[in-house]
Amino acid sequence: MLDFNYTISTKIFFGKNKIEKLDEALKHYGKNILFVYGGGSIKKNGLYDTITNFFTRHFIAYHELSGVQPNPRITSVRQGIKLCREHNIESIIAVGGGSVIDCAKTIATGVYHDRDPWDLFLQGDSAIKKALPIGTILTIAGTGSEMNGNAVISNQETQQKLAIHHDLLRPKFSILDPTYTFTVPKNQTAAGTVDIMSHIFEQYFSPTKDAFVQNRLAESLLKTCLYYGPLALKQPTHYEARAQMMWTSSLTLNGLLGYGKITDWATHGIEHAVSAAYDVTHGTGLAILTPYWMEYVLSRETTDKFVEYAQNVWGIKESSDLAVARKGIEKTREFFTDLGMPKTLRGVGVKENKLEDIAEKTVLYGDVGKFKKLGKTDVLTILKNAF
Amino acid sequence: MLDFNYTISTKIFFGKNKIEKLDEALKHYGKNILFVYGGGSIKKNGLYDTITNFFTRHFIAYHELSGVQPNPRITSVRQGIKLCREHNIESIIAVGGGSVIDCAKTIATGVYHDRDPWDLFLQGDSAIKKALPIGTILTIAGTGSEMNGNAVISNQETQQKLAIHHDLLRPKFSILDPTYTFTVPKNQTAAGTVDIMSHIFEQYFSPTKDAFVQNRLAESLLKTCLYYGPLALKQPTHYEARAQMMWTSSLTLNGLLGYGKITDWATHGIEHAVSAAYDVTHGTGLAILTPYWMEYVLSRETTDKFVEYAQNVWGIKESSDLAVARKGIEKTREFFTDLGMPKTLRGVGVKENKLEDIAEKTVLYGDVGKFKKLGKTDVLTILKNAF
Repeated sequence: MLDFNYTISTKIFFGKNKIEKLDEALKHYGKNILFVYGGGSIKKNGLYDTITNFFTRHFIAYHELSGVQPNPRITSVRQGIKLCREHNIESIIAVGGGSVIDCAKTIATGVYHDRDPWDLFLQGDSAIKKALPIGTILTIAGTGSEMNGNAVISNQETQQKLAIHHDLLRPKFSILDPTYTFTVPKNQTAAGTVDIMSHIFEQYFSPTKDAFVQNRLAESLLKTCLYYGPLALKQPTHYEARAQMMWTSSLTLNGLLGYGKITDWATHGIEHAVSAAYDVTHGTGLAILTPYWMEYVLSRETTDKFVEYAQNVWGIKESSDLAVARKGIEKTREFFTDLGMPKTLRGVGVKENKLEDIAEKTVLYGDVGKFKKLGKTDVLTILKNAF
Repeated sequence: MLDFNYTISTKIFFGKNKIEKLDEALKHYGKNILFVYGGGSIKKNGLYDTITNFFTRHFIAYHELSGVQPNPRITSVRQGIKLCREHNIESIIAVGGGSVIDCAKTIATGVYHDRDPWDLFLQGDSAIKKALPIGTILTIAGTGSEMNGNAVISNQETQQKLAIHHDLLRPKFSILDPTYTFTVPKNQTAAGTVDIMSHIFEQYFSPTKDAFVQNRLAESLLKTCLYYGPLALKQPTHYEARAQMMWTSSLTLNGLLGYGKITDWATHGIEHAVSAAYDVTHGTGLAILTPYWMEYVLSRETTDKFVEYAQNVWGIKESSDLAVARKGIEKTREFFTDLGMPKTLRGVGVKENKLEDIAEKTVLYGDVGKFKKLGKTDVLTILKNAF
C-alpha cells in the first residue's frame, strides 16, 4: 500500500425526497447563487420548479446558466464565469450529471483565475488556488463527479478534452435521489454503467502489486455493476437498481479505490481524444475502447492481473491462465454489447484517416497509462484494432 | 438501500513517517492541547518524544492525561475533563488505540456537559451538543475509532460499558502509520483482527435485504482480514500486512458498510456486558461469542444470509444450504482459534453464576440485535452455550 492522504469531505444526502435537505445543505453558502443545468429535462420532471421555488421561498437570488452540453465546452465555462463576476455569485448549484457538474467546478475556480479558464487545463492542477463552494443535485449516475474534485472540459477550437483535479473542487454537498434517474434514457443509462466500470478498471489495473483491500473493493463495485446495470436498463423505474448504481458511481471515483495505489487512466486518455474530435458519448467511447485496450496490454507480465479479474469478477475457470484472462476480456466485451453499446469506432462515425491525429492528441503531453505505458504507436494500434 | 446522510469528514494521513503532517494537521486547533495516551509503550518506541518535541518546537502548551486503560474508564474521562477546564484546553490529541481515542472523545464532549460525563451515556446521543476538536495518532488497529464518532466507556461502579455516537466526535484528523503497530503484542494483534471482523459482521448480518453493494464491500474487507490478519500475527513487522489491517479497520466502521442499511450489534451488546463485569479484552470476548451468536440466530429465515457469507467469503460448497451455512460458522470459529483466541467464557475467567446478571445487563435498555432481536432469555442461552 502506497502512502496517501485521504479527504472525502462531500456531504451526501442519499434517498427519496432528499431535496428537502437543500435548506440545511445551502445554509452556509450565501444568498447569491449561480444555478447551472443542462437541457430542458429538469423543466419536464419538475425539478426546475422545485429548486427555483426553494430559492424564492428562502430569499436566495439566483442567476441561470442553462444549456450545458454533454462533453461540456469551455465556452459554457466562460459564460458562467462572466455571470459570476457580474453578479458577485457566492456559490454554485449544479443540477444534472457529470457534464453540468464539471462545468460548474471549472467556473467555480475559473472565476478566481486571471486568464482565460482554458489556461487552467494547460497549466495543470497547481494553478488552482481557490474555488467557490459548489453543491450538486445529481440526475444521472456515471461520472462520480458529485463526490470528487475532477472536471473534464472540451475545447472545440483546439479539439481537446482535458481534465483538472483538486480537492478545492469537491462539492460541499450532493443530493442523490435515485428517482431523478428514472427518466434517464436507455442509451445514457448504458453509457453510465460503462463509465462507472471503466473508472473501476482504470484503478484496478495498476502496477501497484500490494493493494489487496483496494482490489477486493474494486471487484465488489464491478459485481454491483454487472448485477444492477442491466436491471436499470430493463426496468428504468426499479428503485434499488437505480440506487445501487448511483451510490456505486459515487464510491467508484471518490478516492476509495485509488488511495494507496498508482492508477492507469490510459483508456480515458484515448477516449477523451476520440470524443474531443467526434463528440461521442463518453461511456460509448469507453465501451468500444476498453476491450481493445485490455487485449493490447495483456502480456506475460500482466496475465496474473487479468486472471485475478476474470476469476474474482466473472468466476471464470479455464485450463490455462491465458485462457482465463482472454475469457475475462471477452466477457467484458459481451457485457457492453448486451447493454446495447457499439463495438467499433467506425460504428460511431469515426473516420479512419483521423486515427493518427487522435493518437497524436492522446499523447500530446506525454505517454499515457501506468499499468502499461503507451506511446503514440501503441495508442494508434489500439485505435486501429478498435476501428 | 435505505436513505442515509453521509459524512466521513476525518482527514487521514496514511503511511510511513506521516507524523510529519502533524504541523499541517494541527494548524487550526489552537495552541493549548490535552495529550491523552495509555501505558508507557509510546515512551518506549520514541513516539512520546517525537510528539512532545513537536509541541515544544511549535510553542504548543500541552497537558498530559496518561494511563488510560483498555476498556477505558469513566474515571479517566473525569480526570481529563478536569484538566481541560483548569487549563482552557482548545483541542485533544489522542495517541494510542481505540481505548485512548474513545476516552479522548468523551472528554471532548464531556467538557461542555454540565453534569457528570456518565450522564451522557445514560441520556443518549441527543445530549451531545458540542465537542472540542480531536486528532488521533493510531498505534493499534481494531476499533476504527480513528475515523468515526463512536466512543465506548466502562463504569466500574455500575459494571456497565456503554456507547455514545455523534458526528461531532469524529476526529478532525488521524495519522495512520502502520509501522507504529509493529510492536503490538500477538494477543492484541489477534484481538484487533477479531474486532475488525466483528464490526463487519454486525453490519453484514442485517434485516435490510436490499444492500448488494454494501454486502460485497463487507465481504471484501472480511477477505482482507482472512488474508492479512494471520500474516500480521506471524510477521509483526510485515509492513503490507499491518497497513492492510490498519486501513481495513478504519474503513470497516467509518460508515461505508453501514450507510443505507440497518445494522445488528447484538454481539457487541453482549460482549460489552461481559467485559464490563470481567475486564476481558474486547476482541477476545467477541471471538468467543460470535460463533455462538451465529449458531443461535441461524434459522430457516436466516439461512440464506449465512449461505451468502459462507460462499462469498469462504468459498464453501456443500450439499445443502444448511450444511453450507453451518460450515461457514465452523470456519469462523476455527479462524479465531487459529489466531490463538479462547473458545469459551469459562476460559477467560467468567463464572457461571454471573451469566444471568450479564444477560440482564445486556438488555437493560431493551432487546438487542436487529438481524434477530434478542431478549434476556436469548442472550442467556448464547452465554450458556459459550460458557
